[in-house]
Amino acid sequence: MFQNTMPRYEILSADAMDKLDQGWRRLVTEIGVEFMSQRALDLFREAGQRVEDNTVFFDPEFILAQVAKAPREFDVHARNPAHTVHIGGDSMAFGAVYGPPFVREGDVRRDATMEDFRNFSRLAQSFDALDSAGGVVCEPNDTPLDSRHLDMTYALQTLTDKIYMGNVVSGPNAVDTIAMGSILFGGRDVIEQKPVSISLINCNSPLRWDDRMLDAQFEYSAANQPVVLTPFILLGAMSPVTIPAALVQQIAEALTGIALSQLIRPGCPVIFGSFMSNIDMQSGSPSFGTPESAIGLFCTGQIARHFGLPFRSGGGLTSSQVADAQAGYEAAMTMIPTFLAGANWVMHSAGWLEGGLVAGFEKFIVDIELLQMLKVEFTPLEIDESTLAFDAHQEVGHGGHFLGAMHTMERFRTCFYRPLLSSSENYERWMRTGGNDTSARATKIYKATLEAYEPPPLDDAIRAELEEYVTRRRAELGD
Amino acid sequence: MFQNTMPRYEILSADAMDKLDQGWRRLVTEIGVEFMSQRALDLFREAGQRVEDNTVFFDPEFILAQVAKAPREFDVHARNPAHTVHIGGDSMAFGAVYGPPFVREGDVRRDATMEDFRNFSRLAQSFDALDSAGGVVCEPNDTPLDSRHLDMTYALQTLTDKIYMGNVVSGPNAVDTIAMGSILFGGRDVIEQKPVSISLINCNSPLRWDDRMLDAQFEYSAANQPVVLTPFILLGAMSPVTIPAALVQQIAEALTGIALSQLIRPGCPVIFGSFMSNIDMQSGSPSFGTPESAIGLFCTGQIARHFGLPFRSGGGLTSSQVADAQAGYEAAMTMIPTFLAGANWVMHSAGWLEGGLVAGFEKFIVDIELLQMLKVEFTPLEIDESTLAFDAHQEVGHGGHFLGAMHTMERFRTCFYRPLLSSSENYERWMRTGGNDTSARATKIYKATLEAYEPPPLDDAIRAELEEYVTRRRAELGD
Repeated sequence: MFQNTMPRYEILSADAMDKLDQGWRRLVTEIGVEFMSQRALDLFREAGQRVEDNTVFFDPEFILAQVAKAPREFDVHARNPAHTVHIGGDSMAFGAVYGPPFVREGDVRRDATMEDFRNFSRLAQSFDALDSAGGVVCEPNDTPLDSRHLDMTYALQTLTDKIYMGNVVSGPNAVDTIAMGSILFGGRDVIEQKPVSISLINCNSPLRWDDRMLDAQFEYSAANQPVVLTPFILLGAMSPVTIPAALVQQIAEALTGIALSQLIRPGCPVIFGSFMSNIDMQSGSPSFGTPESAIGLFCTGQIARHFGLPFRSGGGLTSSQVADAQAGYEAAMTMIPTFLAGANWVMHSAGWLEGGLVAGFEKFIVDIELLQMLKVEFTPLEIDESTLAFDAHQEVGHGGHFLGAMHTMERFRTCFYRPLLSSSENYERWMRTGGNDTSARATKIYKATLEAYEPPPLDDAIRAELEEYVTRRRAELGD
Repeated sequence: MFQNTMPRYEILSADAMDKLDQGWRRLVTEIGVEFMSQRALDLFREAGQRVEDNTVFFDPEFILAQVAKAPREFDVHARNPAHTVHIGGDSMAFGAVYGPPFVREGDVRRDATMEDFRNFSRLAQSFDALDSAGGVVCEPNDTPLDSRHLDMTYALQTLTDKIYMGNVVSGPNAVDTIAMGSILFGGRDVIEQKPVSISLINCNSPLRWDDRMLDAQFEYSAANQPVVLTPFILLGAMSPVTIPAALVQQIAEALTGIALSQLIRPGCPVIFGSFMSNIDMQSGSPSFGTPESAIGLFCTGQIARHFGLPFRSGGGLTSSQVADAQAGYEAAMTMIPTFLAGANWVMHSAGWLEGGLVAGFEKFIVDIELLQMLKVEFTPLEIDESTLAFDAHQEVGHGGHFLGAMHTMERFRTCFYRPLLSSSENYERWMRTGGNDTSARATKIYKATLEAYEPPPLDDAIRAELEEYVTRRRAELGD
């Protein structure tokens, strides 16, 4: 997996960080945070926090004491050990888009299906740029609502041998995910020792944690499976319009969610989550790849490190409907800051279109290209006698050409990033090969990748046990 | 103009900088640099440097002594004082694409004309994001070769009231540019006191400065007009394939060119130039928006500051044929590092397509959007009681909505960047308005901008004098 050992881009002064620190303390103390779960309220009350109705008023020092119990870094185990992921420090792990009810293939936009889900899983397995297919790569609308989490988890476990995300629609869904992980890895005790999934717990921002996601959080944290506590903030809707206010709110929400996990199971793995963009103030629509979201990203990295926590943020976000210029620059406008901030767990890294409503096959390939480029860009330079290439200058001389130089010949295969999708063909050649724009080339690449896909090997007995579990649970759920 | 007071992204350690420092010293001492100009060779010989044939072997300390004479920062004056530009420090100034023989409008790619040149100049005048139309915004192929520099300079001087770039095809062309600047600003003594143009002197890399550009450099530096001494490096062709070697070569080339300017007129304004990308090793085609070019950008900024010089680099570069996803992400892959590096003079900021062979009208608009976004992104956060918005939280409460909050109402017009081009329309509305992709929307924007264009006022007598000069010189040149 990728290690980002380049410098972090940090824009908050010590004074600025201090003001943000005062801000979240005031919020949790005076406004408090709602938890729509009796169990959560009971835990906080027992731990000495003031609870009124569903609102917990916190002592900031109590929160920090809980946060201090969380590990700074941890592993998430894949069934192929080569794909095990480290979360925290310089590590950056990437998962595909999460949640879209629609898909787009070229000009066609339609409801997502289970076969789309499988195809995106196959693509995620095929590209080394991704460490995970993610979780709900798209909503399989042709499968029953109550049991589709079983189908999705089974697909992620069998079509990929990478880590996967846990279902969070309800507590029982989380129980199913954990049970299926236990089957795949050889028992609940095994996965409690070696976590195998990451689950996304979103805050109903501002300052409210909802019951169903909290139920899932209780299951995952109790099972020692990492959870990402993510304030879901579109500035102007779920937070004030000013970035400092959104950052302060984000800290209050993420840290109180993390504190809950640490009460459920002290020391369980958590990730400081961030999903921050803004709405368009004229239409109210969410906007992505904005300057505001990039600033939020820079700051969030610095804030998470300030609290000693691994963090989730970024992705290849865009509001664009199709894989066009806007999709390209907006994805870069979020993914480059993601690398500059050193995000540890990056959801929505491939396939995100239309504000997250659509999983796009062409956009998936665009994003893979971007990820591949950035992994090269964020690799430190080696400066030594060999890379200074004085002998090449002696060989070539003034006004000469280095293409045939010995120094070049020894390195030409690996010296530069080789594009998957980008074309540098000259005009005549580009026209001869069909004059295909980037989206049209991406169509060919994703189709060829699916054709070449081979499922990773899986023990027959384990596969049978997973199938049996899915069949039994589906029947119990009435589907 | 834009002040970038955000932190610089620097990736070279002191040790790395030291190795690069040793590298360029070795190059200028042992390999030397060719100057295809007797005047240049004479100046260097008289200054005590060893000259053999056309090659100058330098004492690095001599170079540094010349570089130390150059101003760290300076102004370039526009005929509209509000558009005067500061070069150096935190200032970033942006010019449009420079040099393309072709233009693209939508699906049509064709030879550029003088009317295209005028239209790009009008667009550059229309958008505050640009500080200059640049120089050869496109090659006006329908005008005579010998005198087209007169037409271009006249267009830049009359259709815009921003700074412009000088023609560098030959010494006489430079003389014409300087003469026309003298007419526009009231005399040669005036523009020697207050420089009015920037001129691009490219190195014929590796390590050779050619005669015609040197002739132009002699004229501009003698007239105290800023020159950008730019190594033109595509790694693998004009330099070794390794980035440190290219950086070292770039330093050797830029600094020796700058040293020449300081011998021509000590203290004249110069800019450390950088144009660095790589070729595709399979096809030999130039590639743009690459990870290698971004790394080069980060390093070049740091190197220029090391030598106390303003620097030129970056732009909205791409190899793409059309304003598609690749054009979007490659432009962002160069323009974001341009801001992170804090480039002072940014050529090719709008309109660059197809590796610089094409000036694209749609791409121009894409790049304006990117520039506008990045100027917001690289503006420091204000963190105070007002932006922390505690009162908004008190007003909205848990799980509420900030759209109608007082704090929002007071700020909704200016709180977020408002896109020029990007769409966050939902699918239904986007389809109702025609389902236009970004390139199609850009077409509408550039056409509407040209329709709304109004030329900046210009004194009739000055205009007449310029026209007279152009007419006379055109006749002298036989066109």
